[in-house]
Amino acid sequence: MNNHGLVGRLRSLMTPGGNPSRLTGRGLERLRAQLRECAAGQGGEVSARARAARLAETYLGLDDAGRQQFLKLIALEFGPDPAKVAAAHAAYQAAVGSDGQWRAEAALRTAMRSSRIRIMTQFNAIPQGVKFLVDLRADLLRYLENDRELAVLDRELESRLSAWFDVGFLELQRLTWNSPAALLEKLIEYEAVHEIQSWTDLKNRLDADRRLYAFFHPRMPAEPLIFVEVALTDHLAGNVQELLDEQAPVFDNRKADTAIFYSISNTQVGLRGVSFGSFLLKRVIDDLKRDFPKLDKFATLSPIPALAGWVRRNPQVLVEAGIGLSLDELTSGAWAGERDQLRQLREPLTRLAARYLANAKRGGQADGPPYDPVSRFHLGNGARVERLNFLADTSAKGFAQSFGMMVNYCYDPDELESNLEAFAGAGRIAMSPALRRLARTVAPA
Amino acid sequence: MNNHGLVGRLRSLMTPGGNPSRLTGRGLERLRAQLRECAAGQGGEVSARARAARLAETYLGLDDAGRQQFLKLIALEFGPDPAKVAAAHAAYQAAVGSDGQWRAEAALRTAMRSSRIRIMTQFNAIPQGVKFLVDLRADLLRYLENDRELAVLDRELESRLSAWFDVGFLELQRLTWNSPAALLEKLIEYEAVHEIQSWTDLKNRLDADRRLYAFFHPRMPAEPLIFVEVALTDHLAGNVQELLDEQAPVFDNRKADTAIFYSISNTQVGLRGVSFGSFLLKRVIDDLKRDFPKLDKFATLSPIPALAGWVRRNPQVLVEAGIGLSLDELTSGAWAGERDQLRQLREPLTRLAARYLANAKRGGQADGPPYDPVSRFHLGNGARVERLNFLADTSAKGFAQSFGMMVNYCYDPDELESNLEAFAGAGRIAMSPALRRLARTVAPA
Amino acid sequence: MNNHGLVGRLRSLMTPGGNPSRLTGRGLERLRAQLRECAAGQGGEVSARARAARLAETYLGLDDAGRQQFLKLIALEFGPDPAKVAAAHAAYQAAVGSDGQWRAEAALRTAMRSSRIRIMTQFNAIPQGVKFLVDLRADLLRYLENDRELAVLDRELESRLSAWFDVGFLELQRLTWNSPAALLEKLIEYEAVHEIQSWTDLKNRLDADRRLYAFFHPRMPAEPLIFVEVALTDHLAGNVQELLDEQAPVFDNRKADTAIFYSISNTQVGLRGVSFGSFLLKRVIDDLKRDFPKLDKFATLSPIPALAGWVRRNPQVLVEAGIGLSLDELTSGAWAGERDQLRQLREPLTRLAARYLANAKRGGQADGPPYDPVSRFHLGNGARVERLNFLADTSAKGFAQSFGMMVNYCYDPDELESNLEAFAGAGRIAMSPALRRLARTVAPA
Amino acid sequence: MNNHGLVGRLRSLMTPGGNPSRLTGRGLERLRAQLRECAAGQGGEVSARARAARLAETYLGLDDAGRQQFLKLIALEFGPDPAKVAAAHAAYQAAVGSDGQWRAEAALRTAMRSSRIRIMTQFNAIPQGVKFLVDLRADLLRYLENDRELAVLDRELESRLSAWFDVGFLELQRLTWNSPAALLEKLIEYEAVHEIQSWTDLKNRLDADRRLYAFFHPRMPAEPLIFVEVALTDHLAGNVQELLDEQAPVFDNRKADTAIFYSISNTQVGLRGVSFGSFLLKRVIDDLKRDFPKLDKFATLSPIPALAGWVRRNPQVLVEAGIGLSLDELTSGAWAGERDQLRQLREPLTRLAARYLANAKRGGQADGPPYDPVSRFHLGNGARVERLNFLADTSAKGFAQSFGMMVNYCYDPDELESNLEAFAGAGRIAMSPALRRLARTVAPA
Repeated sequence: MNNHGLVGRLRSLMTPGGNPSRLTGRGLERLRAQLRECAAGQGGEVSARARAARLAETYLGLDDAGRQQFLKLIALEFGPDPAKVAAAHAAYQAAVGSDGQWRAEAALRTAMRSSRIRIMTQFNAIPQGVKFLVDLRADLLRYLENDRELAVLDRELESRLSAWFDVGFLELQRLTWNSPAALLEKLIEYEAVHEIQSWTDLKNRLDADRRLYAFFHPRMPAEPLIFVEVALTDHLAGNVQELLDEQAPVFDNRKADTAIFYSISNTQVGLRGVSFGSFLLKRVIDDLKRDFPKLDKFATLSPIPALAGWVRRNPQVLVEAGIGLSLDELTSGAWAGERDQLRQLREPLTRLAARYLANAKRGGQADGPPYDPVSRFHLGNGARVERLNFLADTSAKGFAQSFGMMVNYCYDPDELESNLEAFAGAGRIAMSPALRRLARTVAPA
Repeated sequence: MNNHGLVGRLRSLMTPGGNPSRLTGRGLERLRAQLRECAAGQGGEVSARARAARLAETYLGLDDAGRQQFLKLIALEFGPDPAKVAAAHAAYQAAVGSDGQWRAEAALRTAMRSSRIRIMTQFNAIPQGVKFLVDLRADLLRYLENDRELAVLDRELESRLSAWFDVGFLELQRLTWNSPAALLEKLIEYEAVHEIQSWTDLKNRLDADRRLYAFFHPRMPAEPLIFVEVALTDHLAGNVQELLDEQAPVFDNRKADTAIFYSISNTQVGLRGVSFGSFLLKRVIDDLKRDFPKLDKFATLSPIPALAGWVRRNPQVLVEAGIGLSLDELTSGAWAGERDQLRQLREPLTRLAARYLANAKRGGQADGPPYDPVSRFHLGNGARVERLNFLADTSAKGFAQSFGMMVNYCYDPDELESNLEAFAGAGRIAMSPALRRLARTVAPA
Repeated sequence: MNNHGLVGRLRSLMTPGGNPSRLTGRGLERLRAQLRECAAGQGGEVSARARAARLAETYLGLDDAGRQQFLKLIALEFGPDPAKVAAAHAAYQAAVGSDGQWRAEAALRTAMRSSRIRIMTQFNAIPQGVKFLVDLRADLLRYLENDRELAVLDRELESRLSAWFDVGFLELQRLTWNSPAALLEKLIEYEAVHEIQSWTDLKNRLDADRRLYAFFHPRMPAEPLIFVEVALTDHLAGNVQELLDEQAPVFDNRKADTAIFYSISNTQVGLRGVSFGSFLLKRVIDDLKRDFPKLDKFATLSPIPALAGWVRRNPQVLVEAGIGLSLDELTSGAWAGERDQLRQLREPLTRLAARYLANAKRGGQADGPPYDPVSRFHLGNGARVERLNFLADTSAKGFAQSFGMMVNYCYDPDELESNLEAFAGAGRIAMSPALRRLARTVAPA
Repeated sequence: MNNHGLVGRLRSLMTPGGNPSRLTGRGLERLRAQLRECAAGQGGEVSARARAARLAETYLGLDDAGRQQFLKLIALEFGPDPAKVAAAHAAYQAAVGSDGQWRAEAALRTAMRSSRIRIMTQFNAIPQGVKFLVDLRADLLRYLENDRELAVLDRELESRLSAWFDVGFLELQRLTWNSPAALLEKLIEYEAVHEIQSWTDLKNRLDADRRLYAFFHPRMPAEPLIFVEVALTDHLAGNVQELLDEQAPVFDNRKADTAIFYSISNTQVGLRGVSFGSFLLKRVIDDLKRDFPKLDKFATLSPIPALAGWVRRNPQVLVEAGIGLSLDELTSGAWAGERDQLRQLREPLTRLAARYLANAKRGGQADGPPYDPVSRFHLGNGARVERLNFLADTSAKGFAQSFGMMVNYCYDPDELESNLEAFAGAGRIAMSPALRRLARTVAPA
């Protein structure tokens, strides 16, 4: 996806004729010189802009190997000068406790300032520069997997992107069937939870009993950063295929008392670590309440993406839960077609999932963060694990990741704060009494 | 101005009943606790927002003494921990040259991260939070004059504001008589060079032979950050009263070949050090060229604000230039009413100004930056000192600062880059041959 | 005003060199030929547009005498052909009652169609063509006073303008201090009831305890057609100078239960006879109710413009009401400065006004329309005469037209329909019991 | 299509419970009373609006038979009073030539005014009232085919719609992939010439080498009235399948010198007789010229919709043109698959079409309007028949109507006016010399 974005820009930026796709000796020297000029920041803002455009063009003309060289050059050769840092640090420590401490701290900070970020931010001056940087970081994250030396650059870039994408700068927009087609097309491209099959499917998700909200950044107006799909209904929905059924009648939204968040998708790989999901939900709940004063239940219908993976790592849990099938049999979903199996598996599978949500922790420590990433996200926002839904997502993906089960997390305005506190402090997981009980029961021998 | 802004927001934010205007012992304790909570960042983004709003309210309810205490508390008690910095620094220096250098650098950076900026940026989440911070920094700059310990906070805040107000995020808008009255009213309030007398005066400055451009930030849409007023004409305008004459006929802009920038005003005290002026001119020139392809001269009609101050410090220059009047007589402007005086003073005064612009440097070193701040700005953007204009600003202010003289700086697209380079490198000042000659001539004995 | 508008357009439309300001023999011939071409409608829409632009230019280049000739030419020479009308009429009458009646009616209608309106509507194709026609009709109305033969053209034009300015096409806009200055300037120009003194006065009328609404036509977006000024308050306001006082504190609009319409101005002379006032009030009340659900009283504070004129025609009413002063003394307002006079006049003057509003009819018939034009307007919309206010408008104009008195008309949603019916049917005037009683009392001898 | 529109509105307007779908005795009486009230116009505008809404609801609740009754009632019972018309007419004829003629004409006009249009226009006050009326007229046109008595109502309605949809009120919009999806969906629904197959097909028609323009009315912002699809290219395109090929590379629009209008669709059946097509083309050409100054050829690629029909009526023309196949064989398109047939038919078929375009007239008179409706439209706008294209539309529809041929009409700004004049006057058809020659050649025996 991010590559696609870069390639799109490439077409308009690249001079015809083509660039070398990899940096050779001379090319590397030329690039180093370009980067030094950028870092020195000579000339005014105007020449800086021209320089940034040339640099971006060079970058876009390179293949992955070349780009990695490019970024490595910045990471390793444009950091602070250790000697200057040492001197400033000595002065700082000497001044601690004296009047001069604060001046010395500022001076140390200056010595730490690297040219890397200076080079990076100059891209902001070119058209679509923000998107360029976000896409560049997506590259960086890929290269980082095999090359940890790039981490220092990634940290600086993440820190700057966090400043730029501060939630205070984001704009909530409701997307409807009256939104630009080019924007709606992006939703089709980016939906990560329940794929959008067609324009008809999309139109169905924008019908009168639905809402779709996204966050935008003022400098990336054509790119939703994160979006959430909401169904207005009168019950705690427990099956996603029903929600997505294009033939289902449109629910009269004036009768709605429940809003189901059935899909949340982050779109920009390059913004990993910059979080705005919780803020989005808060803003969306406010907006929905204003439009539908009768709404009083806000809940998700969420996947349990890491359940099968957890079972693979802890194979004994199947037996403990009283389940006779193997993991492979469970993920195939074949059992769902047989009535007997269905009847027999309903309780043990639900119990397995309840235990997973109640007890499975990352790193294995009892007070650690939940093993399940979606669970981490919602509990971290103050939600409560409310209900497990058997046969709630009968797609292949649904069986593969969680044996067809889904879960509702409830956002109850009255208990958000206390949930948050207990979760942030002692790692306590808010859970409905029914589920908690189920998690504790022992499977009949 | 900035206080006014804060007070405006105060009205809507303050809970009725009123706050203590100064921090007493218990109030201080409560504030310290509030700040610690903010710094810890417990709970989600949502509680962070509520906390920031309460904190802002507290701040707005304080008088200057209280606010200074507030900011001092943040500056002194929420910095990095010197011991942790020392440890991280030692690890970093030990790793220099090894594979671990980059990880260690990142760790040192983390240790340096202060809670101050964390507290500050949380204000961004409240409505008009950006404007709040800009106004808060305007306070800070005032307190800073007497309290240098605040500088460490100011540096961090300036650095964050620089990231947020990166030119890439600014939007150029042309303001016209069709712009919102509330916005135009701000121009009247902010115009710093040639005061706007009335709505009629303002309308005149927005007529068909004028242009007015401003930069805006997406999160401060009601506040121009900087604006420039342009006159379209067919000659290098040399008198500002003529330009501002409401009775003057409207020039047919289709015949224009020259754009005169006759006023540039920064509006936000709290953004001192965050520069966007040069970028504004570049963007404005581009926009004008698109609308009026015949335009080929871009020049300012600028004040010489520090001329009289320089003469006061260097009284001998009057004699050297062959001027018989005292500084006080010159700044009074009384001589301008007498024809003989006028005739006698024209040449020596012009020569004096030419020398000033050619030679007067800050700090007194020959290759230092120009003494005159306006000159510094335009030369730093690549302009050329083109022409001096005698009796060009006959207002009291005009006489007081530069004996009624003004200067044209020319922005010649063809020589911008070379001017910039020569100026940034050797401090060479670009000047028209006529002016350079005049600066060199000796006054007749 | 309308001339000003035409002159404004003139500047951009007129070819340099100037036109004859009056139609001489040859010019008249040329014009007649132009009009014939227009009427024939030869060529496509494109040439029609070019032709209309030339014709508009000719018109704008003429002085009043020339324009009157221009319009007269259209009125007299481009009507239907009486012979064709006669033939079609005979056929129609012959067909009445038969199957062919409807076809014959359509044919008669076709025969009646005049070229006048064909010529007129072609102006709609030029930029600002609608405004051109509205201004042209303002001219026409002036000439009409001395030249009744123009009435036939005026009727056709009014009929077409009524179609174009159908209330269904009008857009309600709330104007605020954030509206374009160019638009707000129009309010200053057009306010006909209580003159706007300055931009500060205007800003005061747009404050948080005020609302200003206007109707716009999509093709005249820069011209409010009619606007109403509203004060939000908690009592039935009885004094207009208090409402307009720029020093008065801003009322907290959340406490408002009453909306006072204190000024309604029509702006386009050329739209006389095209009514949209009542619709405006209806739409404004709806909008206010949505924003302020607590509002439950909607009333005007209105002038009584024809009271003094009525007294002049019926001098005996002063004596009947027990008033000793002459009409001239009353309209001078001098008595308002003397406490004794004030005390003595309060009751008889109020009684006089109550009788006037209860009984004075145009044409003198008891069931005729009210004598007072403002009364006619509000009663015709279903309002009730609620309360008379002594010393409510102490401007010179206020004394001159109604001895300083003003009146509140109440718009009570619950009784609008019944008031309307009674008024439209029997001419019954809705009035508060107190006022009705007062109107009946006999002055003490 | 229009029914669909009405039904759409129906859903929101209808009170639950349902209406009688046909007017019975009592229902008819009630409707008659409702209409009388509307015609009388009692009460203010506000009650008028409520009444219109109820009436619209009644109408929408009826089936076709009921609606026809509804419209018939208006047509027959709400016309002018023949007696009053007779009296006014007599007075008018008596006054002809006297001073009173103009007053009498106006009085006759008043007597002719029917209540029908008064009732109709009241619908304009309800939301989407204009669209309601346009859809109602589409119904009316259908009923009219079997019931000529409705013509009198249709004429009045057409006349009013013509006033409302005057080209001066229409807004040209360029539609792009950034336009609202709901609007683009309408294009798919309405495209009448070359069906849009899918969203991908649509996106292809909005690519960088395409333009799509539509006219909108300010009160029907969600409904394009007419739209034209344009391809930017460097040659006179002669094959529509090539233009619509989704796989074809995007043409670099900076090199374009030719704009091909390859599809023009009217969308509103209810606006039949209200013409704006020629104006659309004029405005589009202006817009294209501004964006692409190099464009100097503007031409259509048009169907020849009535060619096969004309051949059916004039079977001898096949023989005259030297064509051996029967009409049925020709329209099947089977011959297009055989190389020999293709070679043999190319010339005679092209000649047949050339003759048709040069000589076939409606009504058969030599100076009458062209037989072909598309030809009529473009020649009436000043275009020239430029070139015939063999095998230009190989769809089934293309063969069925014109044996696969299409024609280019050229819009040459330099000759538009003279073409128009010659066409409007003597019915002369502008044609390229090559085509004219071909039309004259005799088929070889």
